[in-house]
Amino acid sequence: MPTIVVDVMPKAELLDPQGKAVAGALSRTGRTGFSSVRIGKRFELTVDGPVDDELRASVQQIAEEILSNSVIEDVVNIDFGDEADESTEG
Amino acid sequence: MPTIVVDVMPKAELLDPQGKAVAGALSRTGRTGFSSVRIGKRFELTVDGPVDDELRASVQQIAEEILSNSVIEDVVNIDFGDEADESTEG
Repeated sequence: MPTIVVDVMPKAELLDPQGKAVAGALSRTGRTGFSSVRIGKRFELTVDGPVDDELRASVQQIAEEILSNSVIEDVVNIDFGDEADESTEG
Repeated sequence: MPTIVVDVMPKAELLDPQGKAVAGALSRTGRTGFSSVRIGKRFELTVDGPVDDELRASVQQIAEEILSNSVIEDVVNIDFGDEADESTEG
């Protein structure tokens, strides 16, 4: 069964304290060279049937309305498992 | 500055109640056709310098030791931002 991947990241203007904690841990354990760490979510949606245009539109809407909070997060990528990744960067 | 993406997912044999909650929400709101939802993490590491072999090895180690808990999670993908994605599926 096809799996669709939706990536959601905190907006660039937000602080992301969880990411800052990881960046601090890297620095404290002597791992240098990383200027920042940001932590978002990766959703894997397994679908029953084929990935057609209707399903793509549905997933796009689900990503924006259910999987992400548009006040604080951006949907940065939706991968429908084929060659044409639909990037919604920005 | 280059950004390295590390994707971490809960192991397949674990329940992932958060994902089950989202799957239930999809079903309750009339969005059918999804058999399961799993929720993992997406880490974006911004690096200061070039992505060389030493940094790749370092990121691989960081992904396995710091960014994921190997008891309950798998590092499913590390994207160094170039053509050759290093997949660690399984």
